[in-house]
Amino acid sequence: MNRRIIFYMLGQILKVEAVLMLLPLICSVIYREKSAITFVITIALALLLGFLLTLLNKPKDKTFFAKEGFVIVALSWMTLSVVGALPFVISGAIPNFVDAFFETVSGFTTTGATILGGTEIEGMSKGLLFWRSFTHWIGGMGILVLVMAIVPTDSGRSIHIIRAEMPGPIVGKLVPKLKSTAKILYLIYIILTLLEVILLFAGGMSLFESLVHSFGTAGTGGFGVKGDSIASYSPYLQWVITVFMLIFGINFNIYYLIIAGKLRTAFKSEELWCYVGIVIAAVALVTYNIHNLFDGFWETVRQSAFQVASIITTTGYATTDFNLWPGLSKGILFILMFIGACAGSTAGGIKVSRIVLLFKRISANLRHMIHPRGAEAVRFEGKKVESETLNGVLVYFAIYFVCFTVILFVLLFEPFDFETNISAVAACFNNVGPGLSKVGPMGNYDIFSYLSKMVLSVAMLLGRLEIYPLILLFSPRNWIKSRNK
Amino acid sequence: MNRRIIFYMLGQILKVEAVLMLLPLICSVIYREKSAITFVITIALALLLGFLLTLLNKPKDKTFFAKEGFVIVALSWMTLSVVGALPFVISGAIPNFVDAFFETVSGFTTTGATILGGTEIEGMSKGLLFWRSFTHWIGGMGILVLVMAIVPTDSGRSIHIIRAEMPGPIVGKLVPKLKSTAKILYLIYIILTLLEVILLFAGGMSLFESLVHSFGTAGTGGFGVKGDSIASYSPYLQWVITVFMLIFGINFNIYYLIIAGKLRTAFKSEELWCYVGIVIAAVALVTYNIHNLFDGFWETVRQSAFQVASIITTTGYATTDFNLWPGLSKGILFILMFIGACAGSTAGGIKVSRIVLLFKRISANLRHMIHPRGAEAVRFEGKKVESETLNGVLVYFAIYFVCFTVILFVLLFEPFDFETNISAVAACFNNVGPGLSKVGPMGNYDIFSYLSKMVLSVAMLLGRLEIYPLILLFSPRNWIKSRNK
Repeated sequence: MNRRIIFYMLGQILKVEAVLMLLPLICSVIYREKSAITFVITIALALLLGFLLTLLNKPKDKTFFAKEGFVIVALSWMTLSVVGALPFVISGAIPNFVDAFFETVSGFTTTGATILGGTEIEGMSKGLLFWRSFTHWIGGMGILVLVMAIVPTDSGRSIHIIRAEMPGPIVGKLVPKLKSTAKILYLIYIILTLLEVILLFAGGMSLFESLVHSFGTAGTGGFGVKGDSIASYSPYLQWVITVFMLIFGINFNIYYLIIAGKLRTAFKSEELWCYVGIVIAAVALVTYNIHNLFDGFWETVRQSAFQVASIITTTGYATTDFNLWPGLSKGILFILMFIGACAGSTAGGIKVSRIVLLFKRISANLRHMIHPRGAEAVRFEGKKVESETLNGVLVYFAIYFVCFTVILFVLLFEPFDFETNISAVAACFNNVGPGLSKVGPMGNYDIFSYLSKMVLSVAMLLGRLEIYPLILLFSPRNWIKSRNK
Repeated sequence: MNRRIIFYMLGQILKVEAVLMLLPLICSVIYREKSAITFVITIALALLLGFLLTLLNKPKDKTFFAKEGFVIVALSWMTLSVVGALPFVISGAIPNFVDAFFETVSGFTTTGATILGGTEIEGMSKGLLFWRSFTHWIGGMGILVLVMAIVPTDSGRSIHIIRAEMPGPIVGKLVPKLKSTAKILYLIYIILTLLEVILLFAGGMSLFESLVHSFGTAGTGGFGVKGDSIASYSPYLQWVITVFMLIFGINFNIYYLIIAGKLRTAFKSEELWCYVGIVIAAVALVTYNIHNLFDGFWETVRQSAFQVASIITTTGYATTDFNLWPGLSKGILFILMFIGACAGSTAGGIKVSRIVLLFKRISANLRHMIHPRGAEAVRFEGKKVESETLNGVLVYFAIYFVCFTVILFVLLFEPFDFETNISAVAACFNNVGPGLSKVGPMGNYDIFSYLSKMVLSVAMLLGRLEIYPLILLFSPRNWIKSRNK
């Protein structure tokens, strides 16, 4: 294990975080808020620690392997969250560190689960609200992808980091030119975010709220500024957010292909059409199911489309308390939490492409049972899929449910109903945010014990980093063998 | 597809069912019940149909392959249940055929989910109650295994049927001498059942009830004769049933090895110790969790052990309404429903050995991530496990959760709470019987619509036959290709 490079990278991350925190600082200064000082303190701390780490750990040997990649990613996200929680603690907005850590992990992992009640959110300073939502935007595209885009690196090994941080079963063909890829991804991300800011602002939202909600949408996070999430905004604004949630749930490869003029390849994507198909089917079923609850067809469709888009993209905004919806709609939303949106997007969940590959693998298995001698290759997105990739998807699926069960088991010690507990795990592990029953869109996670909050924080990190980095970080085998090296 | 052999086998099955139905007929005659006539009618019908099928379909070609094996198994269980439901319909005890089919499928698949209320069960004739529980006993060891044990067959191809009907990821080394194996398995089964009958009878239970409850325990089914299941029996009787439920949850290979004198091999079984470990851990946790609900330590342990044994072995008897237990205990029971007991036993669920193999496969994958070049073989029960078997377990796990989600989706259309719906699916698909909330041990499945009852019947069959036979039966590819042959 190359420990120097790990600490060196952590130092770089802290410096980048310090720079990113300048934005909420500026916001605080503009609104002349006292919370500005908390950002100054945190930035100073992050810079100090960052420079210490990089200066003391100048790597002699810049090569590293998959295991270092996983460890760097896991530690980065934890360090980011610890430092990112400081402004909440220092300002006294969230005095308890465990709560602040939960909130910040929820931000960076683009979950959007909060321990704050509606009045607490509305009473928070603008600077802190900005930071809270900005963590979504930072976490959405991956902090290490950002580091690679802006910090000079000469190592061709960054693939190990991209692999560990980018969601989805296959790292696409974007990979070869990593540095420029990271830049292009961030460029698309910034342009789409700005577009949403403009459309929201044009619809009458204040610039501050437009920014905050665009961060929350772009990262598929879900932190807002009001106790009732998006419910009190105009239908136009709700539709804009619905469309952009869906846009940020699409694989960024598609946008890259569109920019590169390869429209045909882009629109032939199997994952894209499955995603669109699931969304349309879910909206149709929910609309049918809730048509008695709202006035008029379009109002019903808007409510249905918003909630479906919010849950499948694992954003977690709400325009109504869907916890009061009938069982069918709640059940559909519950299932959508697990599916999630496309790989290579900012969304959480298992991902549509994994689900598609799972079905293809199952169907290949059934064919094999009928005709043991016939062997047909599984094809996806026009290419043959290696059996290693398919087995990888199967293993991921298995490990996913094992983790889910373990986390659920810890939550069972809480005195709440089963729906609260299981949906809290589903909502945190899949980075959705709100669940059902007591953690529905109008509830919050403050009801849980500190142990459960820590476990749910881990669940959010497991979900965002797709399990492996964190498990490998805590695997003794990973560390013991390194000493022999 | 060799259709003649399929229909020929179905005919044999019907003849065997007719013979087996002589027992409830005798019971009816002893108690001088009118329901005797319903058995006479059904037996006549089954014999007529059975002889018609075997005479019209004398197979010229006795060879068949895996696909015929799956189809025979799937059709056999459906035919068995349709004919087995007739006594309930003809006698008027369960006038609606869908209800009677649900009850009979629930019997043969050893689920024990009932659509009957407590007073309806207690008002039923002894003959019908005998038949209802006897279906558990027949289904437990597999009807086709029974057919192979008693009907003369000269085909060495029966392996395809054993594979399709016996639960578990690996067909053990018992296989080579199929016919004698089937006989030994049934011998062990009969001896253990008789032992339980004697112990129950000695404890003051009537012979009739001893038989019925032993059938329910041996098949890990769960149909009883009282509205409150086993609650009103003495602690001694409850302990006997607890121990025998656990005994019937153990892989029958172990008993075979013990009989063969290979005690060392028997007690080195990894699956056995994992099973024992899970049971002990679950009993300890539940006992701790419910210690306020009962008087005294041993009373608490008995309640805890009975319910844990009943659920992990997917039997479904109850000595108390565990639906009223706190969330932790209910959650543990819910998780146990999925685990199930050992492969090669009469229990349902995913099976302990599959769970163990799943963990081993995941851990091998994690090792591979850290050391991509190192390749360690996965070992289970002292032997290297082929990667094909491991991948088979992964695929089974995936297809299991896909089926689960599809069945749950249909149940979402019911107006019940989420806990009722999800636990109904878990309890039927895993062949447990009672679930939680409205389908808890003191509730029943009559609340569901006919559509849901049919879907849950399919779920029970899918669970008992471990999915593949039923899916392949309805796979058009299976039938289309056969015409070209």
